[in-house]
Amino acid sequence: ENQETHNNQGRSKFMDFPFVSSAQKNLMVDLVSTLENRFHTQLLPCTLPSDVQYYQSQTATAQASLHIRAAHNDSPIDFVLGSWVHSELPTGGSLDITSLSAYLNSSTDAPNFVFEMIRSSPTMLLLILDLPPRKDLVLWPDDLKTFYEDTQLDKHRQTLERVPEVQPYFSSSLYIRTVSSPTAIMVRVLTENGGVERMEEIIRDHLDPISKQVLGIWLDHCACAKREVGEAERAYLKKRDGLIRNKTIEIDLGSSFPRLFGPEVANRVLEAIKEYFTV
Amino acid sequence: ENQETHNNQGRSKFMDFPFVSSAQKNLMVDLVSTLENRFHTQLLPCTLPSDVQYYQSQTATAQASLHIRAAHNDSPIDFVLGSWVHSELPTGGSLDITSLSAYLNSSTDAPNFVFEMIRSSPTMLLLILDLPPRKDLVLWPDDLKTFYEDTQLDKHRQTLERVPEVQPYFSSSLYIRTVSSPTAIMVRVLTENGGVERMEEIIRDHLDPISKQVLGIWLDHCACAKREVGEAERAYLKKRDGLIRNKTIEIDLGSSFPRLFGPEVANRVLEAIKEYFTV
Repeated sequence: ENQETHNNQGRSKFMDFPFVSSAQKNLMVDLVSTLENRFHTQLLPCTLPSDVQYYQSQTATAQASLHIRAAHNDSPIDFVLGSWVHSELPTGGSLDITSLSAYLNSSTDAPNFVFEMIRSSPTMLLLILDLPPRKDLVLWPDDLKTFYEDTQLDKHRQTLERVPEVQPYFSSSLYIRTVSSPTAIMVRVLTENGGVERMEEIIRDHLDPISKQVLGIWLDHCACAKREVGEAERAYLKKRDGLIRNKTIEIDLGSSFPRLFGPEVANRVLEAIKEYFTV
Repeated sequence: ENQETHNNQGRSKFMDFPFVSSAQKNLMVDLVSTLENRFHTQLLPCTLPSDVQYYQSQTATAQASLHIRAAHNDSPIDFVLGSWVHSELPTGGSLDITSLSAYLNSSTDAPNFVFEMIRSSPTMLLLILDLPPRKDLVLWPDDLKTFYEDTQLDKHRQTLERVPEVQPYFSSSLYIRTVSSPTAIMVRVLTENGGVERMEEIIRDHLDPISKQVLGIWLDHCACAKREVGEAERAYLKKRDGLIRNKTIEIDLGSSFPRLFGPEVANRVLEAIKEYFTV
């Protein structure tokens, strides 16, 4: 019962998204719920230690919630990871990151799901929304067709591109560009003129429906697709997945986490995450 | 001697770039010369039939020049391909494409070189400038470091991005996006306000130096790099190169060529190109 109480507390804290606007919170809660409801019977509860489900820096200027759910052995899902990070900035503002990603296991070769919103000011937001391929699409053009062309994924990127405040965003990490798909949505939203109200409007009217549609494509055409994966291909997927996960930890978490939370906390969280990221 | 005369005529016609502005012609001639001079002793003369080195549509509304030079067996170069295409548009304007690409053979795993300018109006230009990788950079992160990070290739993309008339361009072909590198320069230049003079200025002051610098990186750090390629890797390169070349013909040439030049001419040219594109 103690374990259950602790899990429920961790989960409430995660789903609370206490530092982001109502439009962003609504979107996050919707995405997490949609994904969890679809795999309801397959997902296990989050069993991270409580000081990893919620953690903060020594001076409490940075705090974060992390929620990882593994799946039953017969599920195509390896694990689902959700998180938020809030950090006060020396400039007076704050940095807020909310993310949701889903990693498939090597019983399927379908793409993963990645969603991340990074807000470093009330009028600036980065969105990364992608179904990163798990195979080299140059060598597997049929997969390009199945997962990216036939699903008309690019339509959603094009729709978003037409919003005047939205500009393509190029990650400074070439590795992040390399692992992304040809239909990856990587955009910077700037509402300096319209202010925080316009940002809220863009999240509600554009980012929200587009993100849900892309998640829908992933659920219907990737996560739930029946795929035949042979022995050799399974080994290939394990190798490629493993490389990507290691690099993701290294780039995404390894560098910014110690800076935000101090080496001790960062290390504790990274060790807990690594257990899931090992293929 | 007849053969030599015919080759010289084909070459003059190619290097003449008769339909593009002086800034664009200067840039093309410089790029072709720089590449050819570096591999002077390795490149063979162009031996394409004269009706492939220069060809036109039945009504002469479209004309084109094609120049392909293979290399000696001990060269890392497989072949160098240069071309221009000029086509009158029903709207009264014209479509002009000038391109230069260099394909390496499987004695090296270094990236290829691709340069293409597509101009469908005096104030609109697409530029594709890339060193497309020949291996899956996710599986070979060392290659990402060697060819793309250590060479600071992205600096040039960033420089160009700061020109106000320059916008990122997303090819409608997901395959073209897939084969491109993480530092690919794919941009649309629009000078509706500044007109054709401003376009000329942008080509001369921005596209020209950047293109030369990227070619310089390719020559120094890719084409001339000493690389160890084992048996298995060579087979991998042949397979991947072969797939890319087939798709390139299919997408880039297969669809637009018959439309511009009619099926008979298009077929003659494609058959000649295929000989080089077969790995």
